[in-house]
Amino acid sequence: MASPARLELIALPGLPLVRPGDDLAVLVKVALAQAELQLVAGDVLVLAQKIVSKAEGRLVRLDTVSPSAHAKAVAEAVGKDPALVELILSESRRVVRQRPGVLIVEHRLGFIMANAGIDQSNVGEGMALLLPEDPDASAERLRASLASSAEIGVVINDSFGRPWRLGTAGVAIGAAGLPAIVDRRGEVDLFGRPLEVTMIAFADEIAAAASLLMGPAAEGQPAVLVRGLSWTAPAHPARALIRAEGEDLFR
Amino acid sequence: MASPARLELIALPGLPLVRPGDDLAVLVKVALAQAELQLVAGDVLVLAQKIVSKAEGRLVRLDTVSPSAHAKAVAEAVGKDPALVELILSESRRVVRQRPGVLIVEHRLGFIMANAGIDQSNVGEGMALLLPEDPDASAERLRASLASSAEIGVVINDSFGRPWRLGTAGVAIGAAGLPAIVDRRGEVDLFGRPLEVTMIAFADEIAAAASLLMGPAAEGQPAVLVRGLSWTAPAHPARALIRAEGEDLFR
Repeated sequence: MASPARLELIALPGLPLVRPGDDLAVLVKVALAQAELQLVAGDVLVLAQKIVSKAEGRLVRLDTVSPSAHAKAVAEAVGKDPALVELILSESRRVVRQRPGVLIVEHRLGFIMANAGIDQSNVGEGMALLLPEDPDASAERLRASLASSAEIGVVINDSFGRPWRLGTAGVAIGAAGLPAIVDRRGEVDLFGRPLEVTMIAFADEIAAAASLLMGPAAEGQPAVLVRGLSWTAPAHPARALIRAEGEDLFR
Repeated sequence: MASPARLELIALPGLPLVRPGDDLAVLVKVALAQAELQLVAGDVLVLAQKIVSKAEGRLVRLDTVSPSAHAKAVAEAVGKDPALVELILSESRRVVRQRPGVLIVEHRLGFIMANAGIDQSNVGEGMALLLPEDPDASAERLRASLASSAEIGVVINDSFGRPWRLGTAGVAIGAAGLPAIVDRRGEVDLFGRPLEVTMIAFADEIAAAASLLMGPAAEGQPAVLVRGLSWTAPAHPARALIRAEGEDLFR
């Protein structure tokens, strides 16, 4: 897989605030047309989790949620709204860490993340926004809708905190049309020695790059076109990026 | 801090293979001139750790290393060359995890990483390449040398594996001239609600973006110009990205 000599990242201008039920593919197509951009092979559209979730109606009014006794106890321990904690737990397989102000879980999709990715920025008072039901499937639907003649990729990104390092960085929670992970095992260096780094988190690097244009809450520029990449490996969804528990040295 | 509408990433063409003692700033200046690129304010040069280490003479011949009894025991346990393990341990504060084929340490600079970042790809038979002595200082020297009139940033990147997620992604091990981490605490969303994600790993996202052009062993394109970013926060070195042990939920 050759590395590109040049990459261009373009935040799609003029995307409206996304509402439940919106057809995101149509909104993106309109924005592309207004910017006089035509998708070409190798283009990757990176969409913020937030707008995908909104379009898919993953908004919940917190006052419609009845927290269980368990959720109330966890809420008390971490100092969060019991209704929010109920949502977090209902989206999770297990709690990884809890501490005042902190609730890190294993999301039902396998992500280890704070608050099950539930977001209250830019969603309106008393509302919470869940991750898409199946972000890989969302990415694939968007890809199928957007790719007319050209072979393109779609990445849905979110900002994750990381162990050991401060700050959040963009990662891919959904991907379609490209290899979320690139396996270069078997390739050799300039001296004929097998490469040491052989599994590249391609979709995560794309997600992080696009985050530079989106800003922290993806408020103004939630869709970014990445132009100049190429890939030959078969497409893999973003769930390929999640380490199986048995292979993880850090659980 | 406004997010850019467009970013361009350009791999500097024609950079020669870097050798110990080379003046990397001069090599970069020549490559920029040959590509008819002039640095402008907001430009960030991302340099692969590999070429910074090589220029700084951080190559070690493994047959000059005398492994200690402890290094021999660890080497036996993980199935690695005792001389290499001696180097890894001498660059580390402690071993985080060891297992056949795996040696994850806390590097003396605080990074949690495999093999203390010591690399044997593209360095020649029987050789090992250590991380720069002080990558933030390396970045600052390069920045001072490269920034003539324009305010630019320099990032030194490397590929790290991550807990919970497969594959490696580019991260910043050195930075100068830009805020490695951007603190947006106190800012609000479109509804006036405080932002939830407030600390952005700016230099890591830049590092990951540049990795897309460098390839897995940074063999062919180890220097990437990122054009279009802007920042107002004061510069912070990459060591600001390392979580203090007491603040880390995952140690």
